[in-house]
Amino acid sequence: MTMLIYRYREFQSKVINVNISQWGEKKLIREIAALVDSELCEEGLVGIGDDAAVTVLTPGKRLVTTTDMLVEGIHFLRGSIPPFDLGYKALAVNLSDLAAMGARARYIYVSLALNKETEVGFVLDFYRGLKSLADRFEVQVVGGDTVGSPGPLVISITAQGEADKVLLRSGANPGDVLCVTGTLGASAAGLQLLLDPLTDCPAAIRQEALQGHYRPVPRLPEGHFLASTGAVTAAIDLSDGILKDLGEICERSGCGAALREKLLPLSFAAQTVAALTGKDPLDLALSGGEDYELLLAVKRECFPWLAGEFAARFGTPLYEIGEICDGKEIIMIKADGEREKLAYGGFTHF
Amino acid sequence: MTMLIYRYREFQSKVINVNISQWGEKKLIREIAALVDSELCEEGLVGIGDDAAVTVLTPGKRLVTTTDMLVEGIHFLRGSIPPFDLGYKALAVNLSDLAAMGARARYIYVSLALNKETEVGFVLDFYRGLKSLADRFEVQVVGGDTVGSPGPLVISITAQGEADKVLLRSGANPGDVLCVTGTLGASAAGLQLLLDPLTDCPAAIRQEALQGHYRPVPRLPEGHFLASTGAVTAAIDLSDGILKDLGEICERSGCGAALREKLLPLSFAAQTVAALTGKDPLDLALSGGEDYELLLAVKRECFPWLAGEFAARFGTPLYEIGEICDGKEIIMIKADGEREKLAYGGFTHF
Repeated sequence: MTMLIYRYREFQSKVINVNISQWGEKKLIREIAALVDSELCEEGLVGIGDDAAVTVLTPGKRLVTTTDMLVEGIHFLRGSIPPFDLGYKALAVNLSDLAAMGARARYIYVSLALNKETEVGFVLDFYRGLKSLADRFEVQVVGGDTVGSPGPLVISITAQGEADKVLLRSGANPGDVLCVTGTLGASAAGLQLLLDPLTDCPAAIRQEALQGHYRPVPRLPEGHFLASTGAVTAAIDLSDGILKDLGEICERSGCGAALREKLLPLSFAAQTVAALTGKDPLDLALSGGEDYELLLAVKRECFPWLAGEFAARFGTPLYEIGEICDGKEIIMIKADGEREKLAYGGFTHF
Repeated sequence: MTMLIYRYREFQSKVINVNISQWGEKKLIREIAALVDSELCEEGLVGIGDDAAVTVLTPGKRLVTTTDMLVEGIHFLRGSIPPFDLGYKALAVNLSDLAAMGARARYIYVSLALNKETEVGFVLDFYRGLKSLADRFEVQVVGGDTVGSPGPLVISITAQGEADKVLLRSGANPGDVLCVTGTLGASAAGLQLLLDPLTDCPAAIRQEALQGHYRPVPRLPEGHFLASTGAVTAAIDLSDGILKDLGEICERSGCGAALREKLLPLSFAAQTVAALTGKDPLDLALSGGEDYELLLAVKRECFPWLAGEFAARFGTPLYEIGEICDGKEIIMIKADGEREKLAYGGFTHF
């Protein structure tokens, strides 16, 4: 990462104040391709540069495809996220959907609608950030589209993965254990820090929160392992906030859920930022969204084994947070035993 | 088609003046899914509604993927294309790329960035137009994303096909016959008619031109057949204008080309509209773009057989328009035998 950032700065000094209309479409695409193109080793495969990409899946695997669109001013503010992080995060959001299906990620396609005044340094840094994450999971950038636009920056990424067994949102049953693959609320705490710098926030907390917000790590190997076990009955990634995402599982599985307040793994960053701002840390964890952990329903009899195996493989626990119930409601069992009905929350696009 | 339009009108009367923010994201997606969702017959396949779609390819086939982004104000004007046609054309542009690769189209993913004031009738009619073309080629809509945007409408479509043999832009050799799968310039003539209604233009010409502009038919079965023959050395679809698209073949194949003016199959609509506007019909054919015919380089010894077989299968000729040459230039051999060097032309995005 350090290396990449260093090379970017060196490069940027040469292209500063050059916008994409000065380079033109052809040169921009050539430079992007030089940045992201990876060797397609097999004979007859085709990456960026023709009418379409030609790739292969492992024989016998199913194709798992997801697509996400991000719009400047709605999903991100250009001034408050560095382009490198924007590229990283745009891909992370997408790969997280493959993780939630239990798929192995293979190929990605990146389309951008760009104002012609956009600086080329911005675009190339976006691709550098994206590529840094793609390389981490051995995903290849093999296509896309770059077009002009009079409006906000729009990013559309399609990711293709492959799988034998997949995890679905439907399939949860009353009695299943609800669990998450990591702590909650760091991303929402990071967003708080962007809105209000909170000068008395310790540096390590700031780093944890901004890391959570800018550089979430999609749970790809974890999802792939979880799908292989047959113990998981439903799964979703936490993008819109646990209440809304759990609501999806409940709706699609035809059931309700109970969360136990004292089991919810609040990230230390969320607790600290909540204390500094006088907010309830639970709100950051429940409705903040963008944690990109996996939320799972697991057969109760399998949970002890699965949690042990998961911790052994990935060095991090599966946090039990409640259970799937009959009915259609989501209930919070508070620390004092009181039961509170929760409203579905989270992000709505319009 | 008539049926679809009728049903739309009946439906629209109920939802007129309802915008997407009144319906909300969830209801809009449910209605879209009800419109476009097709049965995924095989066990274990997943369409719209989970984190990702799960599909299968025919065993042994390669995956061919293309993606296109269209922006209001750049690629289309909302006031000058009915939403049904916009949906049709957005998909046609995309499928045409698969046709140019010789692939069979299978699955599509449709993402839209929508202003929250957008009427639901507009969005649903967009999907109806898209679905009418998808059904024609047995392509399934299995995913996508709908997001809010403060800016122009942005459409991003990804199409997946499958193929044994593919057609590439590279591979043309000097001596190869250059040919196209249909007449040229109708789409550009249609655009002229949108810019200037030309009241003295005959109705049949207007229809041909607008049909060419709004409802191009991607050459999918033709591309698939052409790839299977082994006679085609390079192929591209005519999206940006023949000069720019032929320039792509020449650049990627490392060769030049000569076009013969008197062989260029000008559509009757292009000839008529050019005469009415005092334009050169050749300009409409060469730089107008959006004809979505295939431009092919074919081994000379195979051309007579291929042209005969093509005409027999598809009821339309392969029009020879020139040949691939040594060098790097594109030359026009005029009717009087004079040779003119052509500048690469066509559409540039920024």
